Amino acid sequence: MREIAVFSGSAHPELAAEICANLGVELHPVRVRRFANDCLEVQLEANCRERDVFLIQPIVAPTQENLVELLLMLDAARGASAARTTVVLPHYAYARSDKKDAPRISIGGRLVADLLVTAGANRVLAMTLHSPQVHGFFSVPVDHLHALRELAGHFRGYDLSRTTVVSPDLGNAKPAAHFARLLGVPVAAGAKERFADDRVTISSIIGEVAGRDVIVLDDEIARGSTVLEVLARLRELGVRSIRVACTHGLFSDGALKRIADEPDVAEIVCTNTVPVQPDEPEPKLTVLSIAPALAEAMRRIHNGESVSALFDA
Amino acid sequence: MREIAVFSGSAHPELAAEICANLGVELHPVRVRRFANDCLEVQLEANCRERDVFLIQPIVAPTQENLVELLLMLDAARGASAARTTVVLPHYAYARSDKKDAPRISIGGRLVADLLVTAGANRVLAMTLHSPQVHGFFSVPVDHLHALRELAGHFRGYDLSRTTVVSPDLGNAKPAAHFARLLGVPVAAGAKERFADDRVTISSIIGEVAGRDVIVLDDEIARGSTVLEVLARLRELGVRSIRVACTHGLFSDGALKRIADEPDVAEIVCTNTVPVQPDEPEPKLTVLSIAPALAEAMRRIHNGESVSALFDA
Amino acid sequence: MREIAVFSGSAHPELAAEICANLGVELHPVRVRRFANDCLEVQLEANCRERDVFLIQPIVAPTQENLVELLLMLDAARGASAARTTVVLPHYAYARSDKKDAPRISIGGRLVADLLVTAGANRVLAMTLHSPQVHGFFSVPVDHLHALRELAGHFRGYDLSRTTVVSPDLGNAKPAAHFARLLGVPVAAGAKERFADDRVTISSIIGEVAGRDVIVLDDEIARGSTVLEVLARLRELGVRSIRVACTHGLFSDGALKRIADEPDVAEIVCTNTVPVQPDEPEPKLTVLSIAPALAEAMRRIHNGESVSALFDA
Amino acid sequence: MREIAVFSGSAHPELAAEICANLGVELHPVRVRRFANDCLEVQLEANCRERDVFLIQPIVAPTQENLVELLLMLDAARGASAARTTVVLPHYAYARSDKKDAPRISIGGRLVADLLVTAGANRVLAMTLHSPQVHGFFSVPVDHLHALRELAGHFRGYDLSRTTVVSPDLGNAKPAAHFARLLGVPVAAGAKERFADDRVTISSIIGEVAGRDVIVLDDEIARGSTVLEVLARLRELGVRSIRVACTHGLFSDGALKRIADEPDVAEIVCTNTVPVQPDEPEPKLTVLSIAPALAEAMRRIHNGESVSALFDA
Amino acid sequence: MREIAVFSGSAHPELAAEICANLGVELHPVRVRRFANDCLEVQLEANCRERDVFLIQPIVAPTQENLVELLLMLDAARGASAARTTVVLPHYAYARSDKKDAPRISIGGRLVADLLVTAGANRVLAMTLHSPQVHGFFSVPVDHLHALRELAGHFRGYDLSRTTVVSPDLGNAKPAAHFARLLGVPVAAGAKERFADDRVTISSIIGEVAGRDVIVLDDEIARGSTVLEVLARLRELGVRSIRVACTHGLFSDGALKRIADEPDVAEIVCTNTVPVQPDEPEPKLTVLSIAPALAEAMRRIHNGESVSALFDA
Amino acid sequence: MREIAVFSGSAHPELAAEICANLGVELHPVRVRRFANDCLEVQLEANCRERDVFLIQPIVAPTQENLVELLLMLDAARGASAARTTVVLPHYAYARSDKKDAPRISIGGRLVADLLVTAGANRVLAMTLHSPQVHGFFSVPVDHLHALRELAGHFRGYDLSRTTVVSPDLGNAKPAAHFARLLGVPVAAGAKERFADDRVTISSIIGEVAGRDVIVLDDEIARGSTVLEVLARLRELGVRSIRVACTHGLFSDGALKRIADEPDVAEIVCTNTVPVQPDEPEPKLTVLSIAPALAEAMRRIHNGESVSALFDA
Repeated sequence: MREIAVFSGSAHPELAAEICANLGVELHPVRVRRFANDCLEVQLEANCRERDVFLIQPIVAPTQENLVELLLMLDAARGASAARTTVVLPHYAYARSDKKDAPRISIGGRLVADLLVTAGANRVLAMTLHSPQVHGFFSVPVDHLHALRELAGHFRGYDLSRTTVVSPDLGNAKPAAHFARLLGVPVAAGAKERFADDRVTISSIIGEVAGRDVIVLDDEIARGSTVLEVLARLRELGVRSIRVACTHGLFSDGALKRIADEPDVAEIVCTNTVPVQPDEPEPKLTVLSIAPALAEAMRRIHNGESVSALFDA
Repeated sequence: MREIAVFSGSAHPELAAEICANLGVELHPVRVRRFANDCLEVQLEANCRERDVFLIQPIVAPTQENLVELLLMLDAARGASAARTTVVLPHYAYARSDKKDAPRISIGGRLVADLLVTAGANRVLAMTLHSPQVHGFFSVPVDHLHALRELAGHFRGYDLSRTTVVSPDLGNAKPAAHFARLLGVPVAAGAKERFADDRVTISSIIGEVAGRDVIVLDDEIARGSTVLEVLARLRELGVRSIRVACTHGLFSDGALKRIADEPDVAEIVCTNTVPVQPDEPEPKLTVLSIAPALAEAMRRIHNGESVSALFDA
Repeated sequence: MREIAVFSGSAHPELAAEICANLGVELHPVRVRRFANDCLEVQLEANCRERDVFLIQPIVAPTQENLVELLLMLDAARGASAARTTVVLPHYAYARSDKKDAPRISIGGRLVADLLVTAGANRVLAMTLHSPQVHGFFSVPVDHLHALRELAGHFRGYDLSRTTVVSPDLGNAKPAAHFARLLGVPVAAGAKERFADDRVTISSIIGEVAGRDVIVLDDEIARGSTVLEVLARLRELGVRSIRVACTHGLFSDGALKRIADEPDVAEIVCTNTVPVQPDEPEPKLTVLSIAPALAEAMRRIHNGESVSALFDA
Repeated sequence: MREIAVFSGSAHPELAAEICANLGVELHPVRVRRFANDCLEVQLEANCRERDVFLIQPIVAPTQENLVELLLMLDAARGASAARTTVVLPHYAYARSDKKDAPRISIGGRLVADLLVTAGANRVLAMTLHSPQVHGFFSVPVDHLHALRELAGHFRGYDLSRTTVVSPDLGNAKPAAHFARLLGVPVAAGAKERFADDRVTISSIIGEVAGRDVIVLDDEIARGSTVLEVLARLRELGVRSIRVACTHGLFSDGALKRIADEPDVAEIVCTNTVPVQPDEPEPKLTVLSIAPALAEAMRRIHNGESVSALFDA
Repeated sequence: MREIAVFSGSAHPELAAEICANLGVELHPVRVRRFANDCLEVQLEANCRERDVFLIQPIVAPTQENLVELLLMLDAARGASAARTTVVLPHYAYARSDKKDAPRISIGGRLVADLLVTAGANRVLAMTLHSPQVHGFFSVPVDHLHALRELAGHFRGYDLSRTTVVSPDLGNAKPAAHFARLLGVPVAAGAKERFADDRVTISSIIGEVAGRDVIVLDDEIARGSTVLEVLARLRELGVRSIRVACTHGLFSDGALKRIADEPDVAEIVCTNTVPVQPDEPEPKLTVLSIAPALAEAMRRIHNGESVSALFDA
Repeated sequence: MREIAVFSGSAHPELAAEICANLGVELHPVRVRRFANDCLEVQLEANCRERDVFLIQPIVAPTQENLVELLLMLDAARGASAARTTVVLPHYAYARSDKKDAPRISIGGRLVADLLVTAGANRVLAMTLHSPQVHGFFSVPVDHLHALRELAGHFRGYDLSRTTVVSPDLGNAKPAAHFARLLGVPVAAGAKERFADDRVTISSIIGEVAGRDVIVLDDEIARGSTVLEVLARLRELGVRSIRVACTHGLFSDGALKRIADEPDVAEIVCTNTVPVQPDEPEPKLTVLSIAPALAEAMRRIHNGESVSALFDA
């Protein structure tokens, strides 16, 4: 069997190191050189020839830097005769650009998928894509993981007898229902009408939440406006306690502090798909690691074992 | 005939405006939106359908931002049913990554050429590519201009009776000889051995320069170390006066000031292929406009007239 | 300008004829021959050379027959030197296969998009795709129309003072809100949890519907189970009257009769994107024509005018 | 070595089962779901990851259903990370559409070859293609088998001392001559002029047939008109006995009964490349199995052994 | 309308000149330079930008030189921004490599078709391809002409009351029958069994030829062995007179002299699809020009008129 | 591990045999058949199925014959189900056509790279490409070797105390400096201005050469005019002795004799990347074998070991 060779770009080396520790393989170094004209050059500093190469790079801010770096890494791996190159995308920010809701706009989710393939991606390992249709934007095989088991594992430590899972948005209700099933609790959902990128109104909560310990679950939290809106609504409906959970904790523009400052928010839970680096330590924040899950998926991909089986039972 | 529609990215709107003024056509607005997750979305704000679309964007710092923005503009133009999309690249920074001189490195010049085509480029209008082979990296037609006529026009205003053109580098000797022919003066060249990105040694100057008014001509000046080295050598050889000229005035890391501070440098001449914005006004600097040349090439491309004829006579 | 040449497959010749009548151009005949081995052969019976060819074919039952016939028509148009071939897809049934929600399943929405391009499609004119992301499955330009103006035009004939638009499903809430805005009335939505292809439960209706004249609006009605579920819920909530509207009236497995048999359903409105042929005349059914809209879009595509402008004002 | 994984579509599960029995491997189940809108969805119900996948599906009536099902199976196998996917086409009906003998017609044989590759076919195992040029329509490697050894094996059981092999058509004369060589008997051929799909005239028989036991050999029998014409001609020339043999026994429109009803036809022999299901038992019909040959070719493809060697000696 | 620009490679400049004379357009010069290392470089010496470019080059001996030259011409036209490039192939020698009749051989007919497209061919104008299936080897539109009208026009000058057209080979019987219909005479055919490239046996002639004035018609004559075999057979059957006709008069290895030396051959007629340059004047040879037909097809392709209409009536 | 299978085209079978001897594997035979119409057909005469196939063919005169033969070999290998096909290009003549220095010319270096990939090349093993940018013309992985160690090994046998390496051309100065480092001697270079393909002027020599034993090193010697020019210049500067070395000894138009006839040339050294067959034995000529280096690179490619490591230490 071809040997595995794992490399990490600049976006999230801590996650890559943790994945490699889980896999028991070396994380090979990558030299990224920036020229006087601000161009990047990438050198993979270990033999790739006939190797099963994995490149770990979440597409997060600085998004364009990380994206182009990843494209150059793919080019280097192909030129270095990798047997197969798998892009590990713990977060795919461009997935949000998935439709053409105005004339003459780009559909970045599809474009970037095509760019990755042009640069040499043979397959993709993704995590909690913003919409399931984004899977179909890729012309190469995609393994699409989620972090619901990791999140559920964390919350099973609590008394869940009065707990209800709340999706802030009906678009995300399906994973919220799945998550609730894992916890054995009911689910409710906000009916969100989004008016602009940063202004949102939650018109209603479907399902019983009065007197409940709610876990608000979303796929990602960026500026946090959706979550803050749903919290206001939940408060009006008399919930008993609030915890907030998500897979991708982007927390841009001070979102983490803004949510944590709400006195009735007891805890904020996310995973390390993206680097979470609050300016000051945030005691309410719990970051779960998805490194074991990604490592296990990579092991299965490398060995030709079923990845979907990961989600059964 | 299909109508022309010209758009500019964020990299160099002043040049685009000047090109459109020369063409006598409107520069259409582009809306670039940056999301909370640092992704970009581009909207071309004028009808592209069946139009002959030109997208003007030099690939300069911030290079990755400008590159991804251009790729999204291409995607938007294709999705908006442009009849043909021409990328106008007054500067193509990635042209310097044109070979594999170390194992497992990226060849960015070829990769970015492929990305542009994947995103929807039907043709390219480029200016003074770092090496002529880069032309062959593109799988779509390329019109490759140079700025020697503009530079020569400027220097014709001087007394050229004792002038010699000096190429700092034999790799650039061919355009320097062409430039010298335009001025009717002799040419000399440095024999450069480059040791690293920022350390350079000029071992020798080929041709007579003692007592001459030299014009040092290079394709681009980034950190300026090559030029400074050749100036030291010229000084030792007793030149009478020094002027410095280039097409792409990148002037990174204070290069402009560093060269201008040399007391025997009488003038620094470049073109506006890239935005030249010194922190403080630099009296020795002359910036020539290549907007008329690009506009004329675009007019000929649009009308199906010969572009190579531009360079004859 | 290149001449237009319009052809129709076997799926819906009446619609094609009506489109051509609106355009004032001839509908050219297509000869479809079926061989002894059940293979199809298509002959376009008018000159396509350098023409702007439009092939009209909704992908409806018999879906596989209509799809392969369309692929053969595309191949024939390419081989016959069409200047450009636009597939007019009044209905794209495979849009529903837009995600991979089980291991090792096909994503038909993406696959068929790729097959159309392989066979020679240069662009697509689609109507009310099941999810907006499906747009991104196509690697060629897509013009994506909707029928909300046609539907709104019909309902403006009624007293709308007590009317509320109801989307059976939050996934479809955005177009329903758009439709309500066109009518100047409020919107409500069901919060659907779909358990299987033919069993559906509506857990809740968001928004006020008691005592209202509701118009239930969906993108398509196939077996009708979603609509019947929402009707039951609306009835419980004491609505005053019920009308049902959709773009694609597939009405499979006796759905039309089943809905019409509900005594409190006053009217069922759909468009002719697909052939609606009830076994017996159904007095409650109103079929609106989208032929004028498709014809206008085709005219604009042919003339290089903005299609998005169709939806403004 | 990668494991083998064999799946069968709906077209001919009996043949697939027999092939797997010969190979000593399991035939994995495929779930084909038909939605209310008549779209198909395919799920391969066994792990394909890094497997050497074979999809068995003759393209026979209902041709369009079987073709689209196969395309969806290919898409599912690719999405499920198959290491290599081989399409096993015991019969390729579209091979008959191999030329453009009228203006503006489709060339289905080439189109379908391209569609299979678009959907994910890495290689093809075909049997007795209608013309040998069809091999060149595929851009992926094709192994092209024939069934002459199986047919010859059957006839060797007879007294061949007065036997002559007759090709109804000079286009098929080469395989007929090969077959005759295998039996050690002479060959003759009809000089067919085909006027339409269902009307045929045989102008002449080349070679001696009077008083001979003839075996009429064709690649396929669909409506049977060619065979019936040649039988009439043979009868006029005074043959002693008649047997009819072919690889692909399509027998459409009652062809089997029509040939069997000719009193001087002693036997009709075909193989099971396509399902042969007479309405009533036909005692004159002998169906030979090509499952062992296909199984052996698949075994060699899987093991990287020569397939052409199958036909030597 | 885009202007036409016609260029000729080295293979057959006389034909190209004649075509241009018929079209009333200039034949633009091509500079072919051969370097010290035997590489070719091609320069098209007229503006191609946005022109409708036609490159005339039969693929004839020296076949590899002419083929690579044509590929370089295509590359030059694409790089020079041709709007469309049509390859005019009066003869396509590689069409004979159209099947895989031995293990591990090349299928040159398909490969060269792909190479032409890779190099930039947008469409092909071919003449009398060796088998009609070769049309399907091209992934771009092909207009496929034949020369039967030109040949028939010549023979109409004779008394045809006792004439029979003879195809040496049943594979070529269809065009021979077409030709006979044009002349209003009967057709006969040889039943050829080809044993090797240069040894051929005609086993039989189908149809009446005794006492007839025969015109032997083939698509091409290379070494002439097939024709000489059929002449021997015809002589045995007592024909009254013999004329030989073909489209492509390759006449390799002295074939022209060998056929002309047969005393009962009254005339040899071919067209100028390939250069016919006998070492010494051959009085029995008549060369008809297909330049008017190719010119008319090119005119129609350029103007977007039907080419198939050329063959009607 | 897949087995290796090595084939040689007609260009240089002696080198291929020597490589195979070094590898300890069999050189499999290739049958090249030339038809009456001058077309080639290639048959690989050993099983390629799932093999790691290497095709050895320098692109040298007769260049077009050797190129097309190689393309056909690639097609045959792909059709024969090779697991991977590596083109071994000891010399790539078309690398010299690497830029567009005149309007409307072909860029053969890029075109031929694309043709090789179209025909089925999965990777390339090249030697001393004319410019390093040519590497970027290939869309498949390239291993790019040089012969400097072989050449240095030869010269280490001499007294090098007064030796200087001279590059005739600054374009080649980098490898000359590398070569000088291997020998531990200084380097000098000519500053060549090339005026036409066969007329060259060396304006200057940079570096000390008076009284030195010079080794003139170039990548290739074709007509030899560059070398003869530099020799004239060196003679004027009073060198002590002259030896000439190059990788590719093309020696066209009597170049070998012309250089050897210079009395002060003590030795001419080249490698066997191309066949060197002087008409009469040339005592001054030494041909070194690069077969061991190519064999070692092929061994490493086959085994998935680093090729760049070959050049370290």
